[in-house]
Amino acid sequence: MGVVNERDIRVGILGNGNIGAPLVERIESQVDTIAARTGVRLEIAKVAVRTMDELVSTHLDSDRQVTTDALAVCTDPDIDVVVELIGGVEPARTFVLAALAAHKPVVTANKALIAATGTELFDAAAAAEVDFLFEAAVGGGIPIIRPLRETLIGDRITRLLGIVNGTTNYVLTRMTEEGSDFDEVLAEAQRLGFAEADPTADVDGHDAAAKAAILATIAFGTTVVAADVHTEGIRRVTPDLIARATRLGYVIKLLAVVERVRNAEGTDEVAVRVHPTMVPSDHPLASVRDSFNAVFVQGEAVDDLMFYGRGAGGGPTATAVLGDVVDAAQNLIRGTHADVGNLVPAVIRPMDEVRGAYYLDVEVVDRPGVLRSVAEVLSAHGVSVRSMEQTDLPASARLSFITHESREADVQAVRSDFEGLDTVVDAGRMVRVISDG
Amino acid sequence: MGVVNERDIRVGILGNGNIGAPLVERIESQVDTIAARTGVRLEIAKVAVRTMDELVSTHLDSDRQVTTDALAVCTDPDIDVVVELIGGVEPARTFVLAALAAHKPVVTANKALIAATGTELFDAAAAAEVDFLFEAAVGGGIPIIRPLRETLIGDRITRLLGIVNGTTNYVLTRMTEEGSDFDEVLAEAQRLGFAEADPTADVDGHDAAAKAAILATIAFGTTVVAADVHTEGIRRVTPDLIARATRLGYVIKLLAVVERVRNAEGTDEVAVRVHPTMVPSDHPLASVRDSFNAVFVQGEAVDDLMFYGRGAGGGPTATAVLGDVVDAAQNLIRGTHADVGNLVPAVIRPMDEVRGAYYLDVEVVDRPGVLRSVAEVLSAHGVSVRSMEQTDLPASARLSFITHESREADVQAVRSDFEGLDTVVDAGRMVRVISDG
Repeated sequence: MGVVNERDIRVGILGNGNIGAPLVERIESQVDTIAARTGVRLEIAKVAVRTMDELVSTHLDSDRQVTTDALAVCTDPDIDVVVELIGGVEPARTFVLAALAAHKPVVTANKALIAATGTELFDAAAAAEVDFLFEAAVGGGIPIIRPLRETLIGDRITRLLGIVNGTTNYVLTRMTEEGSDFDEVLAEAQRLGFAEADPTADVDGHDAAAKAAILATIAFGTTVVAADVHTEGIRRVTPDLIARATRLGYVIKLLAVVERVRNAEGTDEVAVRVHPTMVPSDHPLASVRDSFNAVFVQGEAVDDLMFYGRGAGGGPTATAVLGDVVDAAQNLIRGTHADVGNLVPAVIRPMDEVRGAYYLDVEVVDRPGVLRSVAEVLSAHGVSVRSMEQTDLPASARLSFITHESREADVQAVRSDFEGLDTVVDAGRMVRVISDG
Repeated sequence: MGVVNERDIRVGILGNGNIGAPLVERIESQVDTIAARTGVRLEIAKVAVRTMDELVSTHLDSDRQVTTDALAVCTDPDIDVVVELIGGVEPARTFVLAALAAHKPVVTANKALIAATGTELFDAAAAAEVDFLFEAAVGGGIPIIRPLRETLIGDRITRLLGIVNGTTNYVLTRMTEEGSDFDEVLAEAQRLGFAEADPTADVDGHDAAAKAAILATIAFGTTVVAADVHTEGIRRVTPDLIARATRLGYVIKLLAVVERVRNAEGTDEVAVRVHPTMVPSDHPLASVRDSFNAVFVQGEAVDDLMFYGRGAGGGPTATAVLGDVVDAAQNLIRGTHADVGNLVPAVIRPMDEVRGAYYLDVEVVDRPGVLRSVAEVLSAHGVSVRSMEQTDLPASARLSFITHESREADVQAVRSDFEGLDTVVDAGRMVRVISDG
């Protein structure tokens, strides 16, 4: 069982906010347990804050343990491991690069940083021969990066479907279960602290897009950045649309969809996007409610996997950070380090060429021949229909379709042609559909 | 991104059956991808079978790559990593110890071996300073051992609830959804290959008990063996009992329940058991159907996590084995190894002292005063009732209770006293209940 001699590892933490403060607390409460189990005795050497007002962990020795000079922490020869919990791209990038250049392992929870400039950081870590770990950047407390990087390295991952933003999942869950409007639920979520005062990054899908880029990079061994991700948020999801999905046996979730698709030349492309998606109500992702996150993974050999848990929150996220800190400390003691492996540039499939099933609806005048004109449009663009439903409205009718697998550009062309038909009152809505396991 | 020079790693595989054969196939199909990503080029040096009849991977070069001398594979100086896929305690134990003694990393999927004599193997691996990895031993293709050992090392895990046997989950799912009898569904499962000809290890809970012991060992850092696990199987679960659970809002699952409980002296004990359990129908485990497995983890900081996937089957299990093989190969190249950390002997809480909620029913003659006599028995043993339901039967009545948290011994005493009451027609059934998140 490896009787281990204890080794002190001095940790420098940049940031003392909603992850940094719980991390300090976890290290302090678990220090003896971790030392007994692993031989690593963690010590909080320095906590860097922008101003002393930002210090939450007020019991720290402010002369000895607290500083406003983050860069000095990154280069301090007495610090063994640096934890970056500032968020955002700059100055976090500068600090991380400084720490790596000083041959210090870095742990971060910063999805925006990795999704923007991961390759630069992976290269810097490889050049310095130190760890750069970021389990907490996707799915908060859910172990997902490490399983993808290590346990599944021998499989060919074909697709990941992720509910990776807790705010939007909370909002969609409340809209679904209470029939409320988006604005109403968002305001309630802000009151309860489930949504930020400026909810843009969450509700417009940017947070999920950063996580999608990281998942694609690790799962496929290709460099994907946030700008590669086609991104749509949830502002246009209405209680009415949710009700129509429910009737057809689906729930609407904001999904990060990351696929490996083979092109005509037989090489792999990466299709990666974030958008509201209709998920069959018996799919494991359908029961992921409120602010919970989950990542559903499909592999050639492993079949279906799902990882579920708290995607945000100080305690869960700090747990993932601390796991990485212990790992980096053990590697440092053993004189080794892990890496993300050799990455190749991703060939991103353009959104127009992405294929999948679609929900479409269209409101038409209720008279003979209308269905034929609608059907002709679908047929002209090669979009075939798996199921159809007609709903009579007071002075018109709504036709709802679920298509077979179709090309995005063809479906968009159908919608545009619908708008040109004089029998069409409203060209209606389009939602992508997960139609298989 | 760490430009890596390729290194050949020669793998010896003991067994060529339902995991061994897919493993050979996965290595052959993924060898280039793994080499490009990690720098590890795996080569199948030897496959050991008991007799040549057992060879499934018939395309191997039988002179060069196949042998019936497993022990020689374990000590062959040309072999870098040994994979044990024979199953059972002996001769697997002898082979694993021989390989470790020869300073070779060992990967295994053998839950029975680890649950019987894990400590001996962990010690041998530590003494030899090599990896001993067993991700595939619990949950097949689901990454669970590594997340518990690494990502969650900084948390205090309080409880694991596992659906860790696919056969029994398949049988219970079919019984629940079709209302069929145990014997009928088991026979069908055997026809379909979801249950073995001798189903004892599965339906009597022994397979799940071995996995519970491993989970407890890794999650709590304590040595727990299969013999420590209180084990009950699913033979006594009837469609009628399932229907009663459904009416109350529960599903019946065979759960491995692994808890860390503080005793009166303030030290931690481990309560570990396998038994049919009523799970609230909105609990994430309730929707784990058919032969899928899942492990639900509760930690002080990380809150609720769930890991879901294929708990058995050649492809999924081989994926987990291959992930370990690549990890062992990388560690070998780096001159390092992982370990399970320092384990302390577990203090096992006796089943009589375990606390939880219970479902109890009792059939009584339908006359005044009967409820009082039943209530007096409950009260005499300090068992308090959270909810009660009375069902009128042709000549009697059935009282069903869900208790508040109670002590196992007290509930057993209640049942025994029920049998002694002259108003009781049938002392009925008892099922443990998961009553919280």
